[in-house]
Amino acid sequence: MKTVLFKNVLLNGAETDILIAGNRFGKIAPAISLPAGTPDAEIVDGKNLAVLPSFCNAHTHAAMTLLRGYADDMALFDWLFKNILPAEDTLTAEDIYRGSRLAALEMIRSGTTFFNDMYFMNGETARAARELGMRAEIAMTFVDAMEDERREKMFAQLAALPFGGNADGSGRVRFSVAAHAVYTVSEKLWRRCADVARERGLRLHVHLSETKKEVDDCVAAHGLSPVRWLDSLGVLGGNVVAAHGVWLDDEEIALLRERGVTLVHNPASNMKLASGIFRGKALSRAGCRVALGTDGAASNNNLDMREEMKLAALLAKVSGDPEAVPAGEVFGWATRGGFRAFGIDAGEIAEGKLADAVFVDLRNERLVPNHNLISNWVYAADARCVRHVLCDGNFLMRDGVVPGEEEIVEAARRAPFLRRKS
Amino acid sequence: MKTVLFKNVLLNGAETDILIAGNRFGKIAPAISLPAGTPDAEIVDGKNLAVLPSFCNAHTHAAMTLLRGYADDMALFDWLFKNILPAEDTLTAEDIYRGSRLAALEMIRSGTTFFNDMYFMNGETARAARELGMRAEIAMTFVDAMEDERREKMFAQLAALPFGGNADGSGRVRFSVAAHAVYTVSEKLWRRCADVARERGLRLHVHLSETKKEVDDCVAAHGLSPVRWLDSLGVLGGNVVAAHGVWLDDEEIALLRERGVTLVHNPASNMKLASGIFRGKALSRAGCRVALGTDGAASNNNLDMREEMKLAALLAKVSGDPEAVPAGEVFGWATRGGFRAFGIDAGEIAEGKLADAVFVDLRNERLVPNHNLISNWVYAADARCVRHVLCDGNFLMRDGVVPGEEEIVEAARRAPFLRRKS
Repeated sequence: MKTVLFKNVLLNGAETDILIAGNRFGKIAPAISLPAGTPDAEIVDGKNLAVLPSFCNAHTHAAMTLLRGYADDMALFDWLFKNILPAEDTLTAEDIYRGSRLAALEMIRSGTTFFNDMYFMNGETARAARELGMRAEIAMTFVDAMEDERREKMFAQLAALPFGGNADGSGRVRFSVAAHAVYTVSEKLWRRCADVARERGLRLHVHLSETKKEVDDCVAAHGLSPVRWLDSLGVLGGNVVAAHGVWLDDEEIALLRERGVTLVHNPASNMKLASGIFRGKALSRAGCRVALGTDGAASNNNLDMREEMKLAALLAKVSGDPEAVPAGEVFGWATRGGFRAFGIDAGEIAEGKLADAVFVDLRNERLVPNHNLISNWVYAADARCVRHVLCDGNFLMRDGVVPGEEEIVEAARRAPFLRRKS
Repeated sequence: MKTVLFKNVLLNGAETDILIAGNRFGKIAPAISLPAGTPDAEIVDGKNLAVLPSFCNAHTHAAMTLLRGYADDMALFDWLFKNILPAEDTLTAEDIYRGSRLAALEMIRSGTTFFNDMYFMNGETARAARELGMRAEIAMTFVDAMEDERREKMFAQLAALPFGGNADGSGRVRFSVAAHAVYTVSEKLWRRCADVARERGLRLHVHLSETKKEVDDCVAAHGLSPVRWLDSLGVLGGNVVAAHGVWLDDEEIALLRERGVTLVHNPASNMKLASGIFRGKALSRAGCRVALGTDGAASNNNLDMREEMKLAALLAKVSGDPEAVPAGEVFGWATRGGFRAFGIDAGEIAEGKLADAVFVDLRNERLVPNHNLISNWVYAADARCVRHVLCDGNFLMRDGVVPGEEEIVEAARRAPFLRRKS
């Protein structure tokens, strides 16, 4: 079992040693000595470093890094149907793989160790996550556009889904089911997706109540809002992770809490597409499960959870309440809140927890002075502050370097999609 | 005259060479050879770099880096009067100097070459700017809290102001006049500040219409909004740089345009203090001069103009218009729009312009793919992308290194203010 001992790391305002045994935090205390019988143990100097839980990016579309900056400054339906979908139709498996590796690199460099993905040709994204050592849930996306023929194909694919979703010997990368949205998925397919996910013990990953138009169209079509309609179909439950959740009334919030649904806030995407303002304070107060995500690079346009925390904390205040969603709360959404939704025992630096962590450089000018580390991390820092990233006890980034980073970037720059375009 | 030749840099989508002669861009063309008689000229490989104008941070309080994270998640008046002002009362000249150097370092690392400062003990901030090679206007802040005795002191200090404001042989660092705000400065002091600034050819730097409370209180006290009241005193003119400008009606916007006032948008600060939403689209449409600033680190909590551009572009869309303030427009606010307000012939990469520029690394994962460099710079990048920063033809940062950076950080960590606190 591999053993790493960090000496003199700042944790909760005091210097301590941290012993990592295998993939978990074994012991956290001052002046730890290496246990006998661990000759290969490594000691890492943690002086001037602070340790924080790594990020859980609870909603993204990794391969869409290839569409970063492809279409900006327009409304969701124009952006999606006129620009993004036609481009996506031309993406090959090789594009998905290279785009997903680029995304994984970007996420690691900014302190993320887990991502919850929704896309297609999912094996390629799973391969990228596995190769870079990340945790991920990779949702296979089901869409029928209300057409019978497409729905039959989707039914066949659903029937072929593995139990438990383990795509990886380590258990770090798993598959899940995505039903895209109420405006792209028929009632029959919603029911089937929900049933299959439940039977096979998989998460159900959805877009939910992102825009007012989505809500209005759903009410016109079904006489119910998206939340109420999906609940009437028996879709909502503790395995559901719902991205956006912008347009929710108090009754829907209470219902989502009761069903145990996790809402994923995507502030950059909601702002950029002018989708509306997430009711973060109301959701937290009601006891809803809240996590944070970057959405895809085509609507953000990066995958930086640190920046996303700042955006979430600032956006919550825009309606006039400077005390809404303080730094500590949004930090919880980005870490504990996310990992809990995926049943991953991480998101806290504590003995027995999985060893997913970032080590930040206290000599970076953004972290000086250190009146309040969480405030600095949320409001002031950037990815330059991140020195090491640990996932499942392994270094994904060490001293600012991710193994293979240059090749990953060059491969993305030469992706087939980009070569065809130029 | 020093000469630097950048080879094969990306500019406006094509590779070119850029010859810098002294402090200006001399020639921009493919395949430039060094002119004869320039034996000391330096050639810099620009392959895989793109050049962009550097940032103008048009409103900040540099020394407030020492108050980064000191008080968060509260309303402006509590934040300012109960937390920040009492702490500021204890700052020494040495604190101002060390905090300003930390600020200058942070700004350079994120691509800023000019800042417009408002604070006290201004000689210390000027010294910091000069030592790091930045451009700056350092406004001496005038406040009388409506008290006669303080006003007399302010009058004496105003009388002693230098003409032209040149605080530095290079002309890069200048002094200016700041009248703090309508709620801290009496009518008599406003008039005197405006007169002195005009007579001596100095900028007048003010806070204006930041919160609804400021506007309501001003109307209650003077029967006029801040903009109308200051205009009635003859304060507003082309030398006025007004931070915030959040609460403006259409008539005030037209008046500000007519007077040639530059409005400085500070999105992070406005969001964090729940001050309101800047009417960026309306101001641009009306032909107002708009620039961008970070405000101080106590209300942001960093000085990163790249992040500020993203916040400005996203915030403009929150009210429901995804086409409001596209990337190119906010980029103009952060560069050209700012430099113009201060009479600095920079903000564009063009022959004859001052050589203020950032060189970004096109192999950084955030800039891949390069469908649209300005979109990537505004929405996706971070300070890790910045490789070189040039100001007035000099390297302020080269290959990611600012000379003396470690000592600057250590000195700030040991500032007297922080030692007294711990």
